[in-house]
Amino acid sequence: MASDLIVVGSVAIDSVETPFGREEESLGGSALYFSAAASLFSPVKVVAVIGEDFPRDAVDFLEGRGVDLTGLITSPGKTFRWKGRYGFDLNEAHTLETHLNVFEDFNPVLTQGQRESEYVFLANIDPEIQLKVLDQVDSPRLVAADTMNFWIEGKPKALKKVIERVDVLVLNEAEARMLSGESNLVKAGKKILEWGPAGVVIKRGEYGVIYFAENHVFSAPAYPLESVFDPTGAGDSFAGGFMGHIAATGDVSTEGLRRAIVYGSAVASFNVEDFSFKRLATVAREDLRDRYAEFRAMTVFEADV
Amino acid sequence: MASDLIVVGSVAIDSVETPFGREEESLGGSALYFSAAASLFSPVKVVAVIGEDFPRDAVDFLEGRGVDLTGLITSPGKTFRWKGRYGFDLNEAHTLETHLNVFEDFNPVLTQGQRESEYVFLANIDPEIQLKVLDQVDSPRLVAADTMNFWIEGKPKALKKVIERVDVLVLNEAEARMLSGESNLVKAGKKILEWGPAGVVIKRGEYGVIYFAENHVFSAPAYPLESVFDPTGAGDSFAGGFMGHIAATGDVSTEGLRRAIVYGSAVASFNVEDFSFKRLATVAREDLRDRYAEFRAMTVFEADV
Repeated sequence: MASDLIVVGSVAIDSVETPFGREEESLGGSALYFSAAASLFSPVKVVAVIGEDFPRDAVDFLEGRGVDLTGLITSPGKTFRWKGRYGFDLNEAHTLETHLNVFEDFNPVLTQGQRESEYVFLANIDPEIQLKVLDQVDSPRLVAADTMNFWIEGKPKALKKVIERVDVLVLNEAEARMLSGESNLVKAGKKILEWGPAGVVIKRGEYGVIYFAENHVFSAPAYPLESVFDPTGAGDSFAGGFMGHIAATGDVSTEGLRRAIVYGSAVASFNVEDFSFKRLATVAREDLRDRYAEFRAMTVFEADV
Repeated sequence: MASDLIVVGSVAIDSVETPFGREEESLGGSALYFSAAASLFSPVKVVAVIGEDFPRDAVDFLEGRGVDLTGLITSPGKTFRWKGRYGFDLNEAHTLETHLNVFEDFNPVLTQGQRESEYVFLANIDPEIQLKVLDQVDSPRLVAADTMNFWIEGKPKALKKVIERVDVLVLNEAEARMLSGESNLVKAGKKILEWGPAGVVIKRGEYGVIYFAENHVFSAPAYPLESVFDPTGAGDSFAGGFMGHIAATGDVSTEGLRRAIVYGSAVASFNVEDFSFKRLATVAREDLRDRYAEFRAMTVFEADV
């Protein structure tokens, strides 16, 4: 199936504890959350690596959604594993265990079809791998990337090179502060923009998203949920909705990006309603449209009279 | 000067330290911040108590703004004093000293004109005093009240009675959680609504404001500032802009309240740009209108296409 959107990231087996329950060995990883979300809007190609132990039939629903898994390579060894816990402050994950396994030698080589992708998402992986992917893609219309504290501290130079070459950087509030060295978020956003990207999306968990571009700011709330069951993958499903909507509409104007940010927020709000991406497997386009309309109803106010 | 808006609260002499400087013995207190903000929109009557040491000429600018200070009673003794410090996390004030002084025996007795006020704001004071004020006002169109952790813990029964009788409760996020016993903010909002108010405004500092009413939610961001100089009075100046705008327009519809929330946010964003209410003394109506328009530009997105 043809697709103009590609994601390069991780596929993982997660074990997650929240105050509301525990889930052992469920599907996770940035590329899977991303594609589960993006495929609600657009076809999407996944480039990632799994081990021989990976329950391949578990991703059947992604294939059913038209996700192109040709780039999901199986390597000798075990799949990347992450074990984490959330307390009542669901904004912060406590990592208990990380086993990179096959992910340690991940070296994506893109096919011609993958190189021609118009929309590229570099999920949270080693910035040196992100650079290798950037070297392989032809002339995408829009490239976005995510990162995390681990790379900000560990590989700042490679990360800086990535940031210079992407159109939109997506990261969370603490990461934006750490990356820029600025405690004030507006200053942090401006500093990152100076390095190259046209826009920076800063995710603030239950407080929503703030987007900085050269001449404007866009602020979107999070959907107010009565119960957040498992926040794992909220950021990646946000990114999936964001990029999926852009790929589906081809609209990279300011207005298009704003709509994409709200759709990303809508998808993320469904994702946290259940463990892993169970909820993303059942949500319908109609549900997303309704939630998008609710975001509008929740934020609109009239011009001054 | 005739006025339909009244505030009952504190007038204080504050000493504040922030990472950006220190200000000794400056004007403060909920009623002063409120009226400095509200008077940008509407005449306002202040009911509060000061000591004999109060630098009366310091409030000249409030009189110049048409603030009715007839209810500002001088009692034998010293004015209420508060000393606080903010670290780099400007969302949280650390109280170093509190001297209630004349405020300890504050017992407001309203004049006939004050009793007939259409719009009433009960600033953050002892809920028993808030109840005494409620017993004296005739039939106001809209009553709003603020409170704080000190009263939530110390006088929960009196506070509950206040909440049952007001139209809008204004409080911050931590207070909403403490008051309701719910860590989830949506549940907290719903629980408080069940006690009586038609609306609950929850202030979230740099993350803006969320408003819960029976059938709808409104979310407004904070204005993204590059430097927050002194957050003291942000909540009271928000309330002043909110109530001042309502009093000026007489519009208590959902749309009117939303506009008032945004104007409250606009005023608060100016207030934190300098110590005490120095910035509120110089801000012009034109500045407020511009900032209101910026809030709209920052939050607007189109319906789904």
